[in-house]
Amino acid sequence: MLAPLDFYFDFASPYGYFASLDIDGIAARHGRLVEWHPIMLGAAFKLTGAKPLAETPLKSDYFRRDVERSARLLATPVKLPPVMPMNSLAASRACYWIKGRDPSMFKPLAKMLYQAHWGAGRDLSAPESVAEIADLLTIEPSDLLAGIQDPAIKQVLRDETEAAVQRGVFGSPFVFAEGEPFWGHDRLSQIDRWLQTGGW
Amino acid sequence: MLAPLDFYFDFASPYGYFASLDIDGIAARHGRLVEWHPIMLGAAFKLTGAKPLAETPLKSDYFRRDVERSARLLATPVKLPPVMPMNSLAASRACYWIKGRDPSMFKPLAKMLYQAHWGAGRDLSAPESVAEIADLLTIEPSDLLAGIQDPAIKQVLRDETEAAVQRGVFGSPFVFAEGEPFWGHDRLSQIDRWLQTGGW
Repeated sequence: MLAPLDFYFDFASPYGYFASLDIDGIAARHGRLVEWHPIMLGAAFKLTGAKPLAETPLKSDYFRRDVERSARLLATPVKLPPVMPMNSLAASRACYWIKGRDPSMFKPLAKMLYQAHWGAGRDLSAPESVAEIADLLTIEPSDLLAGIQDPAIKQVLRDETEAAVQRGVFGSPFVFAEGEPFWGHDRLSQIDRWLQTGGW
Repeated sequence: MLAPLDFYFDFASPYGYFASLDIDGIAARHGRLVEWHPIMLGAAFKLTGAKPLAETPLKSDYFRRDVERSARLLATPVKLPPVMPMNSLAASRACYWIKGRDPSMFKPLAKMLYQAHWGAGRDLSAPESVAEIADLLTIEPSDLLAGIQDPAIKQVLRDETEAAVQRGVFGSPFVFAEGEPFWGHDRLSQIDRWLQTGGW
């Protein structure tokens, strides 16, 4: 079996959302699977000194425009959420919690959360908002709310985030294909080519 | 006559170098010219809090790898310079000086400087190094060294940089096409499409 790709992203990142729509398909064309890793980008930002795009002078305006413009080009619905960046802690923990309980629900939940946040502009900072989305997948809201408070689940997210930073992840999306690092939605075509050619 | 594109870049930016190779051709396919504007990105970095990529933890390693990998994909020669980022003050001033004296030499000099810095890995922080490259274009080195000390030339670069920041420029390359802002070498295909379709 060929090694899976590793896909790191923060739910607060719209470019991670764009990548989430295509990364599995790209990998599949080359006989690969993709491991999804929601992380808290803030941990990397502490090292790089970066600030969230929405809070950075000059970049903030461009960022909004670029996200909407890129979405139109991709024919992907986008509605800018009221709070940018949202706190993605509950959403990320929810994914690792469901992964431990029913792995088959991990990606469906992650995709639904991304869709709700960037496709429909829903703020998912509150655990209750995450539970409401999970409910659509028949995940019992009270189970989820209890699950994301589990210290073991909190630790999984911390570990995943720390492992990502150790590997050099500093932005979202960030993908490793055959150990090769690719940062940004705009590198998807390079990933596709890398898998096709085995590098260049 | 259709409005020209505005192309802002810092000579210390390799992605600006990549863009410089294609931007005129893309514009020409749509009956456009391109105004080149060398600027000092540091002025924008003061507002955004950004640091040069080569000096940013985590990003620094990725940056080197991405530049070399992208260059191979573009079949463009790249040799990482010994000093990154170099001080691009002399190179930028030299371009505005020659523009005032002989506009036809402006882009040839800019291209030669970019080629020397990113194609051949030459540090151009010292005015003498810039003059040496200009000499290849039969620009008298002593004229250039005097010219870039002219207060009026220094002011042109300050004005261009300030005007860029006023327009929202925070990175290199940064292009305006029909007033629409595009940041990054990876947005060239969007620029091409924007000019073709009149926007989307």
